[in-house]
Amino acid sequence: MKAVIILSGGVDSTTLLYDIIDDFDEVLALTFNYNQKHSKEIEFAKRTCQKLGIEQKIIDLPILGEIAPSSLTRENIEVPEGHYEDENMKQTVVPNRNMVMLSLATSYAIGKKAHYLFYGAHAGDHTIYPDCRKEFVDAMKGAIKLSDWTEIRLRTPFIKMNKGDIVELGKELGVDYSLTWTCYKGEKKACGKCGSCIERLEAFKQAKMEDTIEYD
Amino acid sequence: MKAVIILSGGVDSTTLLYDIIDDFDEVLALTFNYNQKHSKEIEFAKRTCQKLGIEQKIIDLPILGEIAPSSLTRENIEVPEGHYEDENMKQTVVPNRNMVMLSLATSYAIGKKAHYLFYGAHAGDHTIYPDCRKEFVDAMKGAIKLSDWTEIRLRTPFIKMNKGDIVELGKELGVDYSLTWTCYKGEKKACGKCGSCIERLEAFKQAKMEDTIEYD
Repeated sequence: MKAVIILSGGVDSTTLLYDIIDDFDEVLALTFNYNQKHSKEIEFAKRTCQKLGIEQKIIDLPILGEIAPSSLTRENIEVPEGHYEDENMKQTVVPNRNMVMLSLATSYAIGKKAHYLFYGAHAGDHTIYPDCRKEFVDAMKGAIKLSDWTEIRLRTPFIKMNKGDIVELGKELGVDYSLTWTCYKGEKKACGKCGSCIERLEAFKQAKMEDTIEYD
Repeated sequence: MKAVIILSGGVDSTTLLYDIIDDFDEVLALTFNYNQKHSKEIEFAKRTCQKLGIEQKIIDLPILGEIAPSSLTRENIEVPEGHYEDENMKQTVVPNRNMVMLSLATSYAIGKKAHYLFYGAHAGDHTIYPDCRKEFVDAMKGAIKLSDWTEIRLRTPFIKMNKGDIVELGKELGVDYSLTWTCYKGEKKACGKCGSCIERLEAFKQAKMEDTIEYD
């Protein structure tokens, strides 16, 4: 049995990879480069794949950054600081990003004859991102199942977990979090101030685990 | 009110454009270039947009041709001849092509603040293409509706029509079919032999309309 995983290089998808790697004969990683400011995460995804001996395909998708404005992809829109729930974090929404990634991942899975597709959507995301809602993910499961004559199953085992729960699981699994990147600003060190950094720091605190990446 | 339409330059989407153009304040056309051999259809889509005064965006998506093999995108796989129902026409399936196009079109619609998205899926397609089935389209409607905080409505008014019905409608609407391209081979003249040409010829026959494009 073969599975495809969407691996961003962040905490969620990296933990998910460690979680499923022994459940399949082969796990194939798919990483998207959509000119995100934090494209540094792609390098981290690559290093995790090398460490675990996983085949990785990187898909260049500059169109996603071009098609609609977001502070994650446009130089002239600054990444906001502060907690995720704040209104200004909505600037970080790349419209319909997850459906675009899932649809291409499904094409890839069909081509590779993989019948399972994993992605690390989790409960913490949904307050800002409409395409992280459970209802959205359920609708996508239905569509992906019908996208080929053989059924492709979308699995999102973290959908009811928050990032803290995920890091707790990762601690058990021995995830090497030094090979993950979270900060939206994508500078040399993590900023520690954007919504993404704040959520990460709180998650490590919940899991009583030391975060070994460097903060500014 | 604004709508986005996926316009390939073929008979179905071109007829759909004529059908909806007066129902909205603005209709925006989106055309995909996925290195299909019949990329000639893109030129035809462009000419229809010019004729009707429609803003068109062309999205280059070579990754779709690259990600999974299909006779429509690979030089080393020949486009089969014969009727659509034949087993060998399955080589023309580009895995999950419609979901990929719909997902990017949804991103585009969100960015343009358009609340309607149209695409010309029709009944004749579904025997070969899993992602033309009504169940698939219904599942996508549900997912697209949830992809943003404002509802995006996917409309597929031709879903129960065959190509003959569509050309009959187009005849009434005064569609300029000389600006449409159908042949999968994409050579100078239409081949008249591939599944796509055969279906077109039968559709014009049903509609008792002359097909003015040149055949080999």
